[in-house]
Amino acid sequence: MTRASPAAGAGSRLDVMNFLNEMAEMFPKAVSFASGRPAETFFQMDEWLRQVPRFVAHFAEQEGIAPAKAMNRLAQYGRTNGILNSLIAQQVGVDEGIACRAEQVLLTTGCQEAIDLCLTALCQDEDDVVLVRSPTYIGVTGVADLNGIELASFSCDAKQGMGAALAQAVEAVEVRGKRVRVLYMIPDFDNPTGDVLSLQQRLDAIAYCAQKGIVVLEDNPYGMFRYEGERVPTMFSLDRHDCVIYLGTYSKTLCPSLRVGFAILPAALAAGGEGRLSLLDRLSQAKSFATVNTSQITQAIVGGVLLEKGGSLQGHIGPAVAFYRQNRDAMAAALEHCFAGQEGVSWNVPEGGFFLTVTLPFRFGMEEAQMCARDYGVLLMPLSFFALDVRQDQMVRLAFSNTDPAAIQEGIDRFSRFVKDMIPAG
Amino acid sequence: MTRASPAAGAGSRLDVMNFLNEMAEMFPKAVSFASGRPAETFFQMDEWLRQVPRFVAHFAEQEGIAPAKAMNRLAQYGRTNGILNSLIAQQVGVDEGIACRAEQVLLTTGCQEAIDLCLTALCQDEDDVVLVRSPTYIGVTGVADLNGIELASFSCDAKQGMGAALAQAVEAVEVRGKRVRVLYMIPDFDNPTGDVLSLQQRLDAIAYCAQKGIVVLEDNPYGMFRYEGERVPTMFSLDRHDCVIYLGTYSKTLCPSLRVGFAILPAALAAGGEGRLSLLDRLSQAKSFATVNTSQITQAIVGGVLLEKGGSLQGHIGPAVAFYRQNRDAMAAALEHCFAGQEGVSWNVPEGGFFLTVTLPFRFGMEEAQMCARDYGVLLMPLSFFALDVRQDQMVRLAFSNTDPAAIQEGIDRFSRFVKDMIPAG
Repeated sequence: MTRASPAAGAGSRLDVMNFLNEMAEMFPKAVSFASGRPAETFFQMDEWLRQVPRFVAHFAEQEGIAPAKAMNRLAQYGRTNGILNSLIAQQVGVDEGIACRAEQVLLTTGCQEAIDLCLTALCQDEDDVVLVRSPTYIGVTGVADLNGIELASFSCDAKQGMGAALAQAVEAVEVRGKRVRVLYMIPDFDNPTGDVLSLQQRLDAIAYCAQKGIVVLEDNPYGMFRYEGERVPTMFSLDRHDCVIYLGTYSKTLCPSLRVGFAILPAALAAGGEGRLSLLDRLSQAKSFATVNTSQITQAIVGGVLLEKGGSLQGHIGPAVAFYRQNRDAMAAALEHCFAGQEGVSWNVPEGGFFLTVTLPFRFGMEEAQMCARDYGVLLMPLSFFALDVRQDQMVRLAFSNTDPAAIQEGIDRFSRFVKDMIPAG
Repeated sequence: MTRASPAAGAGSRLDVMNFLNEMAEMFPKAVSFASGRPAETFFQMDEWLRQVPRFVAHFAEQEGIAPAKAMNRLAQYGRTNGILNSLIAQQVGVDEGIACRAEQVLLTTGCQEAIDLCLTALCQDEDDVVLVRSPTYIGVTGVADLNGIELASFSCDAKQGMGAALAQAVEAVEVRGKRVRVLYMIPDFDNPTGDVLSLQQRLDAIAYCAQKGIVVLEDNPYGMFRYEGERVPTMFSLDRHDCVIYLGTYSKTLCPSLRVGFAILPAALAAGGEGRLSLLDRLSQAKSFATVNTSQITQAIVGGVLLEKGGSLQGHIGPAVAFYRQNRDAMAAALEHCFAGQEGVSWNVPEGGFFLTVTLPFRFGMEEAQMCARDYGVLLMPLSFFALDVRQDQMVRLAFSNTDPAAIQEGIDRFSRFVKDMIPAG
């Protein structure tokens, strides 16, 4: 048998990004709700580059070296675990209510590397399984598929309760002689569903995973993009069992091309003991053979901005939050306008994030997505692209982050014409 | 059995970097010949950052977008395969005599990621083996060990000839029912030995590997750092069988913290066909789940410098080449001065690169390295740290890249006192 044979169904999952790019290239005039990229209007790279000297001065002081030497030291190879650890601990403390020490932080080349490192370090045995919601983020299924790590899925509907849903999925894995090692989730404004887990769901998941020895990967790229309603505490901050690893990124709060992300490990998984490597040590070792260390230049850009903003980005993203809220409102209004009274069509209106989903009264797969792009001029992502079972076959993901109200109105109008053409006149 | 159980002996190999860092921290006043880092004197990050607008203008033209939009586009997610492909094809054409098209180039987050992607993509089957010289670069053995990929080694001494040495090693693998899939080498100024493969050795290796279906990874971080003598053509440029992948980096010509490296695939491995993914497609797919894409900010820095230098870095590195040559000369002179007539002590004087090796009349391992650091104030790397067999037990690697003639004189003097203390008076 092969070491890293992609799992069943992996081929189509791995191809999703290609499909998306091809559609975008073939139909450049289509309105796109396909990509969840952040809005470019709020990138200020010229300004951020001017903050590098600020970090250089800080780094010189931190390292006890002359400022003139600090820039050269930054340009050199550096610590595998990164040089922003303290600033990140401070920022997540202020912005996310997360209490941690710098020693618990591992800088990564974007959050994707953190997912990759965590899954491959935690799932070393062939019997180790990663549990995810279905549907879920492609970045996690892709890592599992490429590394021959088995995926299992569950869906958390409100009726069943999180504990019972997890127990059912885990038992189904265990009867096959395998073991769930990791639970991956985006509790805040999930990609692709836009869902937020309730406080009770989070507490139940932590209690269940702690008892079963399952490590939770809490991926939180969207938590700071809340447009109304009360924030639910992160799972990391609720965890009293040292079983939650928190994954963060500056791709949405600043910009993606920095490729600066991080993992924060609970104290027990960060601390080594009696000559044994801690999980953090193992992640660090694996990182040293993957990318050596995260670029200290892009770390310096992030660090300069964090220093300039006094350690918090919540104020900085204010205009972006207002912009995304407006887009979300425009999309909700357009959906209401176009689909009100349309039987079998429903959607959610998340209190934050970049995505919402629409449920249709018919199957929406790759073929329908192509039809939408070609014949109606609107790019959408079938939810089945993110799914591990067939329950999402009639659902579509709409990203509202990288567009504007006018395009949203036009795009939803086009989409509604497609939907109406697909439904036989009653 | 486990998916990714480190191979036998892997533990100590994986620990080498830790050992090195610990020694450096414990004995900060020791003269260090341990790390092969580039000299920081030649880093010009402030100046390089000023070249970003130059690349932005170039990128705007290349993409057919307004210059004002180009910076934002750079800050966004981008093409998995990178945006410097044409500039790199041009640079390696001028500087390394390599003819390739932009479509054959994959940008990576430092060359280490290229090694990681190539080994894991090529060695998908449990029977796949990576063949390396012993000793060899820790970055390649680390990737193999972490991914449970078996390593086999050979040594190319001039007497046996490359073809025979490879055949012997490959046959030893094949009798165990396994197959050599990849041959990894640093043909120019090898790390750790400083060796250069002759034209005949290169041609023999290509002929043998082409016939056996083995892919050659030619890693060339030091080729441009030649201090005298005639350049030998790269294996990539000699390859008529599309079996050599070329790996490059800007860590030595510019600086490490850019984390910009690349792989150049031979045409046949870069081109897809009839719905099948090419090797380049597979590397690209794996990269998208490892680091998404190489930071476009650091790519823009490299791109700006390449544009400013007219597409070649050979002139730019002139002062660094002169500096490293002076260090190499100082080290050769100090070795001659301290060890002339000393029986059993010998060394090589490479025509370029960052390293040379000294052979001692006694075993030099971790314990001896510690003794040198603690009692004699000089940091050295036992060659056994890089070895897969016991033939290098009496050898030491000395890096002369990140030091200066005065430190070299002092360090070699300290080293010679250690050696003399270790040899019983005759």
